[in-house]
Amino acid sequence: MSPFKTTIPLSLSSQPLNSLKSDEAASGPKQGPTFQDGQRRVDYVLTYHVQKPQSVRRKTSRFADYRILRSLRRSLSTMRSGGTPPSKEDPEIAAHKHRLDYHEDDKRFRQTEFEDNLREVGLELEKDEGNKIPGIGFLKIHAPWNVLCREAEFMKLKMPTKKVYEVKQGSNVVERINLFIHKVTAPLHPKVEPNRPQNSSIMMLFYPLLSHQILYEEWASYSVFYKYQPIGLIRKYFGEKIGLYFAWLGVYTQMLIPAAIVGVIVFLYGCATVDNDIPSMEICDPRNNITMCPLCDRACSYWKLKTACGTARASHLFDNPATVFFSIFMALWATMFMEHWKRRQMRLNYIWDLTGFEEEEDHHRAEYEIQVMQKTLKKQDMSPKVGLFPITHVPLGGQRFSSLVPLQIGVTFAVVFGVILYRISIRAALHMSSNPTARSNIRATVKGTAAVINLVIIIIMDEVYGAVARWLTLLEVPKTDKSFEERLIIKTFVLKFANAFSPIVYLAFFRGRMVGRPGDYVYVIGSYRMEECAHAGCLMELCIQLCITMLGKQLIQNNLFEIGIPKIKKLIRRRKSDMDSQQQEDYNMTLQRHEKDHFLGPFVGLSPEYMEMIIQFGMVTLFVASFPLAPLFALLNNIIEIRLDAKKFVTEVRRPIAARAKDIGIWYNLLRGLSKVAVIVNAFVISFTSDFIPRLVYQYMYSPDGSMHGFVNHTLSYFNVSDFQPGTAPLQPMHLGYEVQICRYKDYRETLWSNTPYDLSKEFWAILACRLAFVIVFQNVVMLMSDFVDWLIPDIPKDISLQIHKEKILMVELFMKEEEGKKLLRDNHTNQGPFQPRSRPASHAPSKC
Amino acid sequence: MSPFKTTIPLSLSSQPLNSLKSDEAASGPKQGPTFQDGQRRVDYVLTYHVQKPQSVRRKTSRFADYRILRSLRRSLSTMRSGGTPPSKEDPEIAAHKHRLDYHEDDKRFRQTEFEDNLREVGLELEKDEGNKIPGIGFLKIHAPWNVLCREAEFMKLKMPTKKVYEVKQGSNVVERINLFIHKVTAPLHPKVEPNRPQNSSIMMLFYPLLSHQILYEEWASYSVFYKYQPIGLIRKYFGEKIGLYFAWLGVYTQMLIPAAIVGVIVFLYGCATVDNDIPSMEICDPRNNITMCPLCDRACSYWKLKTACGTARASHLFDNPATVFFSIFMALWATMFMEHWKRRQMRLNYIWDLTGFEEEEDHHRAEYEIQVMQKTLKKQDMSPKVGLFPITHVPLGGQRFSSLVPLQIGVTFAVVFGVILYRISIRAALHMSSNPTARSNIRATVKGTAAVINLVIIIIMDEVYGAVARWLTLLEVPKTDKSFEERLIIKTFVLKFANAFSPIVYLAFFRGRMVGRPGDYVYVIGSYRMEECAHAGCLMELCIQLCITMLGKQLIQNNLFEIGIPKIKKLIRRRKSDMDSQQQEDYNMTLQRHEKDHFLGPFVGLSPEYMEMIIQFGMVTLFVASFPLAPLFALLNNIIEIRLDAKKFVTEVRRPIAARAKDIGIWYNLLRGLSKVAVIVNAFVISFTSDFIPRLVYQYMYSPDGSMHGFVNHTLSYFNVSDFQPGTAPLQPMHLGYEVQICRYKDYRETLWSNTPYDLSKEFWAILACRLAFVIVFQNVVMLMSDFVDWLIPDIPKDISLQIHKEKILMVELFMKEEEGKKLLRDNHTNQGPFQPRSRPASHAPSKC
Repeated sequence: MSPFKTTIPLSLSSQPLNSLKSDEAASGPKQGPTFQDGQRRVDYVLTYHVQKPQSVRRKTSRFADYRILRSLRRSLSTMRSGGTPPSKEDPEIAAHKHRLDYHEDDKRFRQTEFEDNLREVGLELEKDEGNKIPGIGFLKIHAPWNVLCREAEFMKLKMPTKKVYEVKQGSNVVERINLFIHKVTAPLHPKVEPNRPQNSSIMMLFYPLLSHQILYEEWASYSVFYKYQPIGLIRKYFGEKIGLYFAWLGVYTQMLIPAAIVGVIVFLYGCATVDNDIPSMEICDPRNNITMCPLCDRACSYWKLKTACGTARASHLFDNPATVFFSIFMALWATMFMEHWKRRQMRLNYIWDLTGFEEEEDHHRAEYEIQVMQKTLKKQDMSPKVGLFPITHVPLGGQRFSSLVPLQIGVTFAVVFGVILYRISIRAALHMSSNPTARSNIRATVKGTAAVINLVIIIIMDEVYGAVARWLTLLEVPKTDKSFEERLIIKTFVLKFANAFSPIVYLAFFRGRMVGRPGDYVYVIGSYRMEECAHAGCLMELCIQLCITMLGKQLIQNNLFEIGIPKIKKLIRRRKSDMDSQQQEDYNMTLQRHEKDHFLGPFVGLSPEYMEMIIQFGMVTLFVASFPLAPLFALLNNIIEIRLDAKKFVTEVRRPIAARAKDIGIWYNLLRGLSKVAVIVNAFVISFTSDFIPRLVYQYMYSPDGSMHGFVNHTLSYFNVSDFQPGTAPLQPMHLGYEVQICRYKDYRETLWSNTPYDLSKEFWAILACRLAFVIVFQNVVMLMSDFVDWLIPDIPKDISLQIHKEKILMVELFMKEEEGKKLLRDNHTNQGPFQPRSRPASHAPSKC
Repeated sequence: MSPFKTTIPLSLSSQPLNSLKSDEAASGPKQGPTFQDGQRRVDYVLTYHVQKPQSVRRKTSRFADYRILRSLRRSLSTMRSGGTPPSKEDPEIAAHKHRLDYHEDDKRFRQTEFEDNLREVGLELEKDEGNKIPGIGFLKIHAPWNVLCREAEFMKLKMPTKKVYEVKQGSNVVERINLFIHKVTAPLHPKVEPNRPQNSSIMMLFYPLLSHQILYEEWASYSVFYKYQPIGLIRKYFGEKIGLYFAWLGVYTQMLIPAAIVGVIVFLYGCATVDNDIPSMEICDPRNNITMCPLCDRACSYWKLKTACGTARASHLFDNPATVFFSIFMALWATMFMEHWKRRQMRLNYIWDLTGFEEEEDHHRAEYEIQVMQKTLKKQDMSPKVGLFPITHVPLGGQRFSSLVPLQIGVTFAVVFGVILYRISIRAALHMSSNPTARSNIRATVKGTAAVINLVIIIIMDEVYGAVARWLTLLEVPKTDKSFEERLIIKTFVLKFANAFSPIVYLAFFRGRMVGRPGDYVYVIGSYRMEECAHAGCLMELCIQLCITMLGKQLIQNNLFEIGIPKIKKLIRRRKSDMDSQQQEDYNMTLQRHEKDHFLGPFVGLSPEYMEMIIQFGMVTLFVASFPLAPLFALLNNIIEIRLDAKKFVTEVRRPIAARAKDIGIWYNLLRGLSKVAVIVNAFVISFTSDFIPRLVYQYMYSPDGSMHGFVNHTLSYFNVSDFQPGTAPLQPMHLGYEVQICRYKDYRETLWSNTPYDLSKEFWAILACRLAFVIVFQNVVMLMSDFVDWLIPDIPKDISLQIHKEKILMVELFMKEEEGKKLLRDNHTNQGPFQPRSRPASHAPSKC
């Protein structure tokens, strides 16, 4: 199929150039790195090891040369807007190693063949071996104009037309409003040339050095955090894929603003109404002298309900009717966000000329081909038949490694369970201790340490799981790069998600559900009683956990991992060259651009960035019913995150290869999936974790006067202390100063004087039915509303679809005119027989080529 | 925007040619209708009235000439496979009338201008005025080869390449299995040439007369009902849009086969286990001497439970655990069906060369433009400013008419309610009557007549609603044809759906829910008690209603409306010409093809056909939990339906214009929506309409020995006859032969000896909670499974994606070779300065043009 059949012994590693210029057609003086002749500009640089004969040898497939063409094609996508073809990097070739025994001669032969193939497709090469940096050779590549033109035609790159339609947005009033809005938001726009495709063409000069400078000042700086991002410039400099990531991050952050505002309002509503909340008033009222059953066996004693006053009041902040409204709001918000992004993506696709662009079919990965070849060779050894092996249909048994993922999730659950056990045992130990200060701080200590332990475990496991997912995917040997990436993302997502959310899910839905009742508690592992929630439900603890996880994760991961570690790595790389700082600086001065860039960190792809944001999106949408401040936290984090990522991309890592992309790919599906799951999770949080439904049911079914008065009493069942199982009664029954005959506990159970005491009562079942009914209604109504919003908002913005339509009409007119001219010609010249019009030049090719 | 500005006074009506040939390039003798010269073939025929000066005048927009080009383009899509450009029909122009006062001169002037415009785009015309059929003029249009070529290039029509990739399907074993399957299914394939695109080209001769004959024999005949449809041929003859409809219908019918088989098995399982069903055994057991409370006030008396034995046994046929399995199966079936269709559509898109085809932007409808013009003129009258009016931005106030749709749905509900009242009153009247035969047949009579009345009302309202939806959409004046069609479809769908399903929904979810209890019944409109269900639940009645609706609707609509009425219409049209049958036949002999076709019925679009199928799909999926035989009924109907539609298209109506389409459009969304709604509806049917959950709950929570024994007793509450409200006690209390003190009724209420007799009992709430929990679990599990199936099955069949991929590689190779040749040429000739390659011929244009 391919004209080239070669294996390359070069240990290709990447070398980007952070400043390049593309204007060969321009007549001005040449800027940036060039070949020795000072004329031909350096477009790509490949590096290889020249000194160590024992160094790692890599075997790549015969598609390696195709890959350079592919990246050429990608880089051309920026040409129309005057961007620069970025430097070449093939992370895949650099990433994996297959030691095969080849002779030194063989290696040299294959290197030559590889270079010959590059020359054959029209590229021009120049070598720069071991000049400044010992052991490293640079292969500079120059792509001449005609190669660029050929590839441009291949890509069906569009040329800007002379005639441009300006779509007027409606009437004068609308225009004036738009103008006004533009004036008001003017300071929010970054100080760069607006990205007008009609003004830029291949012929326009563009200095990458300048754009690097602008990006550094107007984007990668904390001082401009309130401004829009210069997306057009980012795309020109880094390519569409990275441009889309930052555009997405920008849309997400922007959309978080209203969510954060509403969340804060909901929280403030909770604060304002906390004094009017009858149930917490009843709990705090000392006249309601309610004696509660002990919270643990033997060591604990009876306690007064009014000691739970603080918790009850705090719970109200997050557990009030506004929360229900907020979770419906957030479900719709998620849908709006997806729609908004779709439209933004469509607009960017139009502006960036991607409307006709089709994702290229991926070639097979080298590792896949090697494995197939080995399998086939084995087969051929057994059977005498020799022939071409059918590459596409040899099944590889890698799929089975996916079965390890459930195992990993099992490990995660085990960790969660471990933390639970820790909490139970610590609490029991603290209860046991006679120190009164320790005992009074029991709750705070246990909650705090447990949440921190959880956080630490989450962060450690996060890194472990990232590595595990990568390892599993490698074992599977996926066919193409794309499938490799997708599988890796899905695995990483599942593991990291389970890791981040299992403690939260436990708190929300399992904690305090299976505790049993006084006299009949549920015990795990010997004699540990299951955890109960504080009186006002588990919502408060869920809230604390979410708060610590979000803040801690973001702070630690941002500061430590994203800023600290790259700096340390860079330092180590520098140290390796055994020079002090003065020497280093002098040495730096002598280095060329591409040699300097050699010391920057490699670009590891966008997946970690997306993953972090998706997990955060999960936190914001999934449990928003229990923590309305989550959007605010996310917003604050993201404002920093954007500039942090920008700094990293501009200054910390080698300039990544420009990749074309129409959309954000699998991440969109993950977001969609999350926002679907969020609906049902929120329904359950509202109906089962919060006290919303029991309160409603009490008010409308059981309350004698239709108010909430008596609700606390209604939720508490009676327990006769003589029914304690032997050895579980409190050791200090007189702790409160009086003898307790009947204590109360939070559950809906039959009264002592019914036929079946301690059985679940009719109220329990009625409330359960209401809770479940609420889940059904909530889920379906919100899903319907989401679908409606989805259907209501067109995916393509109106002005864009109008513009596309008008451009089509322009094409038709042009074509018809041409036809007419031809007809005239025909009528004048030949007048015999059916006319056969000749083929016309393709209308999509750049006319200068 | 358009070079042509004209309004056409012609009262264009359509005239298709059922037999045409397209091979002008062929040298053989000309077949089919030609111009007078016997050379140029007739491609399109427009008809107009010539005699009546008072006849209806129609005003069409300046886009009318574009439309002919558009249809030309569409017709070209069949060229590659050697099909014929079909005849021209513009149903829109023919459909609506706008009487405007123009002078006769004006009319003639505009007709001339219209014809001039046709000539200007290269078409050749010939007139045939009032030849055989008085008052009708025919304008024959011939599209010369160069016009066809121009349009072909416009459409980027692909040419077949010489080199063809044959994709081998895996190993030898797979191939052999495929061969075996092909051999076995050979008799199922219609006897036509297989649709191989590589063997057919523009140059291939194809005789439409022949294809008409093949379609008639191998498709439009009941005798071939077991065979696959000749989809390729259908597409060649009728165009892609109709081809897709029949392909879809075929896939749907095929997919119904497994559903029908499983449904029958489920039904048979019910039949087989009816004797082992403990609850119905208990009801039928005469030893369980249970006295039930009267079913109506005063007139009815107490009755023995064992009289409900038959109903209970019959109910078991449709209400058993297999039904739950079946509704999960059908939810997954619906997803599979959608996926299967997506893949089939993709394959057809590939085979029919539609992969690169983009739906053309619709031009504005004439009615819309007229209204905009009138509005603008009014505006201009008020303001002195004169200028071009912005067509796209004048808002029309038509949207408000949509508000009539809820009104219509209200009417539907009123009708349903009326039928309910009829049932209640008839039953009461029959109970009142002293005739014992009448009384014993009460139930059967009421059920039967009510269902039939429902059916009749449904069928009548169906027609009314179709007209109403059309009227409403006309009032709205949608912008484009596409939006007109979509709005019409959505309105028709909502109305017809509400019409067909409201009685069923009432039976499934509302009947027997709000009846109250003995001594405290719910009354509507004076003294009518709400309907109760038979003892074993409403499932049986739901089943009868579904059965009658499905059978009756399909039989009546198929036979009467689809066969009968067109025949009658045709007869009437013939009668109008005042000739007896002999004269008629003689006259027919003298007519040309296009004159004969003039007497056929017009083609009214595919919407009615799709709509019928969608409603049926609703019946099959929505309430399948209550009626597992629905897929079987649907299958039997569809086998007939395919051939019926085929007959209609081939012989009854004028040959419709060939329209290109990539997919079935909005119908796919409706299907998707239905299959989503089906999940939740089935969840509710199983948990609330059937006795599935109460049985499970009894078995695992209340049964003393874990069996179903005692279930009937458990579902019945006690009523003390002294608690009857005054005037509601039965008139004949001794009807059973003994005095009744306590009677039973089906409900979960507190016992007489509890503190709160007649209150809903704990069992009621427990069972309600279980029902609701089941709904949540069922809905989410099935939705998850559906999504999983959706994700599992790739949308593009593997062989097709492989083929597309290989074709791309072929293109690349071709291109590279061309480049290489150029490079050689350059190296030999010129060797100075950067080379500027010239533009190449477009690779997509047919090479002969």
